[in-house]
Amino acid sequence: MLLSEVAKKLKFSFIGEDLEVGSMNELELASSSQLAFAVHKKYASKLSSSKAKAFLIVESLLESLPKNSSYIVCDNVLLAMAYATKLFTPKLIELDLKPAKIGKDSYVDDMAKVENGVVIGLNVTILAGAYIGTKSVIKDNSVIHPNVTIYRDSIIGKNCIIHSGTVIGADGFGFSHTKDGEHIKIHQNGNVIIEDNVEIGANCAIDRAVFNSTIIKKGTKFDNFIHIAHNCEIGEHCIFVAQTGVAGSTTLGRNCVISGQSAFAAHLDIAPFSTFTARSGVTKSIKESGGTYSGYPLMEHRKWRRLQTKISKLNS
Amino acid sequence: MLLSEVAKKLKFSFIGEDLEVGSMNELELASSSQLAFAVHKKYASKLSSSKAKAFLIVESLLESLPKNSSYIVCDNVLLAMAYATKLFTPKLIELDLKPAKIGKDSYVDDMAKVENGVVIGLNVTILAGAYIGTKSVIKDNSVIHPNVTIYRDSIIGKNCIIHSGTVIGADGFGFSHTKDGEHIKIHQNGNVIIEDNVEIGANCAIDRAVFNSTIIKKGTKFDNFIHIAHNCEIGEHCIFVAQTGVAGSTTLGRNCVISGQSAFAAHLDIAPFSTFTARSGVTKSIKESGGTYSGYPLMEHRKWRRLQTKISKLNS
Amino acid sequence: MLLSEVAKKLKFSFIGEDLEVGSMNELELASSSQLAFAVHKKYASKLSSSKAKAFLIVESLLESLPKNSSYIVCDNVLLAMAYATKLFTPKLIELDLKPAKIGKDSYVDDMAKVENGVVIGLNVTILAGAYIGTKSVIKDNSVIHPNVTIYRDSIIGKNCIIHSGTVIGADGFGFSHTKDGEHIKIHQNGNVIIEDNVEIGANCAIDRAVFNSTIIKKGTKFDNFIHIAHNCEIGEHCIFVAQTGVAGSTTLGRNCVISGQSAFAAHLDIAPFSTFTARSGVTKSIKESGGTYSGYPLMEHRKWRRLQTKISKLNS
Repeated sequence: MLLSEVAKKLKFSFIGEDLEVGSMNELELASSSQLAFAVHKKYASKLSSSKAKAFLIVESLLESLPKNSSYIVCDNVLLAMAYATKLFTPKLIELDLKPAKIGKDSYVDDMAKVENGVVIGLNVTILAGAYIGTKSVIKDNSVIHPNVTIYRDSIIGKNCIIHSGTVIGADGFGFSHTKDGEHIKIHQNGNVIIEDNVEIGANCAIDRAVFNSTIIKKGTKFDNFIHIAHNCEIGEHCIFVAQTGVAGSTTLGRNCVISGQSAFAAHLDIAPFSTFTARSGVTKSIKESGGTYSGYPLMEHRKWRRLQTKISKLNS
Repeated sequence: MLLSEVAKKLKFSFIGEDLEVGSMNELELASSSQLAFAVHKKYASKLSSSKAKAFLIVESLLESLPKNSSYIVCDNVLLAMAYATKLFTPKLIELDLKPAKIGKDSYVDDMAKVENGVVIGLNVTILAGAYIGTKSVIKDNSVIHPNVTIYRDSIIGKNCIIHSGTVIGADGFGFSHTKDGEHIKIHQNGNVIIEDNVEIGANCAIDRAVFNSTIIKKGTKFDNFIHIAHNCEIGEHCIFVAQTGVAGSTTLGRNCVISGQSAFAAHLDIAPFSTFTARSGVTKSIKESGGTYSGYPLMEHRKWRRLQTKISKLNS
Repeated sequence: MLLSEVAKKLKFSFIGEDLEVGSMNELELASSSQLAFAVHKKYASKLSSSKAKAFLIVESLLESLPKNSSYIVCDNVLLAMAYATKLFTPKLIELDLKPAKIGKDSYVDDMAKVENGVVIGLNVTILAGAYIGTKSVIKDNSVIHPNVTIYRDSIIGKNCIIHSGTVIGADGFGFSHTKDGEHIKIHQNGNVIIEDNVEIGANCAIDRAVFNSTIIKKGTKFDNFIHIAHNCEIGEHCIFVAQTGVAGSTTLGRNCVISGQSAFAAHLDIAPFSTFTARSGVTKSIKESGGTYSGYPLMEHRKWRRLQTKISKLNS
């Protein structure tokens, strides 16, 4: 889409060369063919080093704009960004694509729905009621149980097991807000990538990224009711016990163990080999690997145990 | 159904005119054609001002009964009420109704199930594995993702997005109890109404009302795994972050923001523009709008932060 | 399968008679035709009284082995056990079995999937999108709502109601671990048994047992989002409010009431008629029946209330 079209649809004017932009991205990740957005002065340095050539930008950041950029100035960049994401959203289904390619020795039940443009590997099992969205890929030996939903553009690795009721690739939860308190959808145009040897329990939900990918790395195992928000990256060989949630853009290192009903705030980095006991509430990044933590607010497990003893003595 | 039939099926006798009653309701909401129930002395004033003309009633309340009422006296009104609700439950499906009406430019996948008596508006998308129950209504431009279940009699507004795995209109959780500790189902004969511009994440559950409606007002957005119990009313433009639950009959005002893993007890009224941080546990109504709250037991967010500091010092 | 075949596939050698073993089980539950496993010295007495005749066993336990046993010695019995479970896992579907038997007056929607070998009783209702796995049994008068998934070998009693999105019989969450931090699946070869008059809300997950059965006893009622792990046994007439989880092998007595967002650790025994308020976190067994509990760590409800008062005073 030409930048002039974007500007026209958002009812803004643009300045600079009328570039073709294929999609959107954040400043630090955008390529030269993507439309980026610069919201606030604190992103000035990210802006000046961005590879993007087209921007939605707040006026106060214009001086940090790379030379020869094209741009659309807007008062409320977050709101303009939300409206712009809609312009780059693919259709839910694409009936004109070729029917799915299904590899040798794979079983796809007659009552499973596989949309066009899907690629299914060798020896895959897809049971009744499963849904595989447009252009998704299911690699060799994976099992998709009944009533699993995999939204379009998802990639499922080899030897994965996805249990019933799980939803992979539903929209991440992102909105911009109007002055009147309405919430304008930021269309979630990224995808989900599940690497090899991952098992996902029943009734989990792993949301697609707003841009780029939500990633579950190889060998990780999820119990039931795990919530992974958009743009998370879960390391290799992690264990998630039931009813745990991870908010957006949080990254976990390898071999973390998270006990039941725990939660992680957004935008954290968690060191590998971290262990969290039940109901941990994690609100800060963890830099040192190998620790064991508890509680909300979170603390070292030993401290938490001691603290519970102290608290119980208040009653005496 | 005639009151005489109700009495016969419950094995009670009735007194008064043999009225036709079409359904059941609570004292203060019942119309003149509904069967109401009066459980306890403390409801005497609600009883005497009720518009209903037919009652299941405990003997001690007879003196508060409006003149010319018809009534069935029972020892355990709650138990009789539970049995009575069964008599007014519609069938799960009605094969003799007309096939669904589907508006122009709407797409209903061959592998979606749309029961008879459904009305689907213009430009609606219903993907494979979705279920639309008898007499439900899906209004213009809404998207029902794969493997969504919408029970009978639900109403989904315009421009709504319902993500996969979400269940709308399953039975609320209500039982009366026998002396022997058995739980007798209170059939949930109400419905769910979702207003315009609502988005509901993956694997949510919004229960139908026991009588009347569970309502999600316009512009509200739900993340994944949101539980809304029967007879709740969620105000306009609220934001619910993942894994939050609201117990029965609780009402939230507009533009409330509820962070992840929070919970609301039953029968609360929450003022508009209230904000709740993660894991809030709300057990009392909130009258003043615009506050920010945390913790369980709930308190003002500032107090909660100070308290956490104090608690952590117990360890020193 | 002959023990020699098991040994060959695991690349171990075996000692003793080459017995036929049909399945696996724990030491104290194994029959004479099952392969048992003995992991650690502390199980010596269970080993010596086991009815099993074939064992995966750690060398240090050999002296406690019953006479005339056959056995496979392995360094890491848990890991060998995980690999061995795979050998006894039935196929996901068995296309060569007879089509389902469907009892009189039962309704099975054309868009429900009922695998071969299923037995459906009288007056059962199975709505669109439901999945009934191989050899499962659904007894008289039960209702399976749309998009419910029932994995193979499950047994659903009479007069049960299973709401949409619920998953019964997905794999329990069990893994053995390699030195390199990989998780090796313990195949879950047991099943789920739901007794009569049970109602299960929307989007619940009740996992199949690793060996033997996960059991929900008669008359118990589940709200939405209940997680029951493998090998739990939930007593008669219990009430589970939404978003509660029970970890593996925990047993609850009859008529327990568990409020919302509560959790139980694994391997607990909970006395009958116990009540737990919202967000209870239960980490120890409860021997005395009839108590009321709160908090995490759990304590008597009265103590918890008093403690909350004391805690709130820290702020003054």
